[in-house]
Amino acid sequence: MVPLLQAIKSIIPVTAQEEELIGTLFKKRGYSKESFFVSEGEVCKYVGFIVEGVMRFYINDNGEEKTYGFIKENSFISNYGSFVPQTPSLQNIQALEDCRLYVISHADLQKFYRDVQHGERLGRLVIEQVFIQMLQDLNSFYTDTPEMRYDKFLTQNADLRQRIR
Amino acid sequence: MVPLLQAIKSIIPVTAQEEELIGTLFKKRGYSKESFFVSEGEVCKYVGFIVEGVMRFYINDNGEEKTYGFIKENSFISNYGSFVPQTPSLQNIQALEDCRLYVISHADLQKFYRDVQHGERLGRLVIEQVFIQMLQDLNSFYTDTPEMRYDKFLTQNADLRQRIR
Repeated sequence: MVPLLQAIKSIIPVTAQEEELIGTLFKKRGYSKESFFVSEGEVCKYVGFIVEGVMRFYINDNGEEKTYGFIKENSFISNYGSFVPQTPSLQNIQALEDCRLYVISHADLQKFYRDVQHGERLGRLVIEQVFIQMLQDLNSFYTDTPEMRYDKFLTQNADLRQRIR
Repeated sequence: MVPLLQAIKSIIPVTAQEEELIGTLFKKRGYSKESFFVSEGEVCKYVGFIVEGVMRFYINDNGEEKTYGFIKENSFISNYGSFVPQTPSLQNIQALEDCRLYVISHADLQKFYRDVQHGERLGRLVIEQVFIQMLQDLNSFYTDTPEMRYDKFLTQNADLRQRIR
């Protein structure tokens, strides 16, 4: 639970009592290599925090897998487009290595928002960050060449290069 | 201030004291037809709430204006990709009619988050909604034909058809 609490405490203050609550709301969950955090057609059940491992995001485009992102340890992960409205996912999130996560369900996240004093603030800041990152990726998609985007990806994720072959 | 307060109170409870605070944080602002809420290259200064009028979102694509959205009265409006990180906007938001808005600056929105008890919750829910809408629009862009998207737009915005010629 330590890395998750550290990540949360880097964004909002948390009391000792709230730490205990967070410990009951988030559950440990392992994903073996090639298993799915969420697959197309399924409702995304969790927001996760990756303690160890890396996952990839892809869509099925007429049978061809098109990868459009990776998330690694010490980051929150979800398919917000499915998780927030609780509608079926259009994308897949798959473990590229054996992964260890802490996950929180939709119902427990509402408890987190209600019972952790600054929980709503954490939620707002995390979703803002995900949204802004997505807008930047989209913009890069329209304005940069594939080579520029690949170079940018390698610069930002030098360590991933070895792990995602 | 009444329509703005109604919109806020439909999402979170607000005390009488908070209503007064909200009345000082949001400022009345008019945008005459064809003036800009934000233009490309400028940092988006406000989140607005449209009381009257309609605005369009467009990008300049090598001199050609490409419109990709409209927002009308009783809705929040911003270029979040510019407003949240306070970086220059890549898009334009322009009044299509004379518009009346209440606007809140970036600094005052931080006060709103700090001093309105459920302010963070409002912020989270609004940005979640904008984010999800954008994901749905993007998905429609990739999966629907232009005709299908136009039909969907007309169904969802029947009243706008007359106003945006």
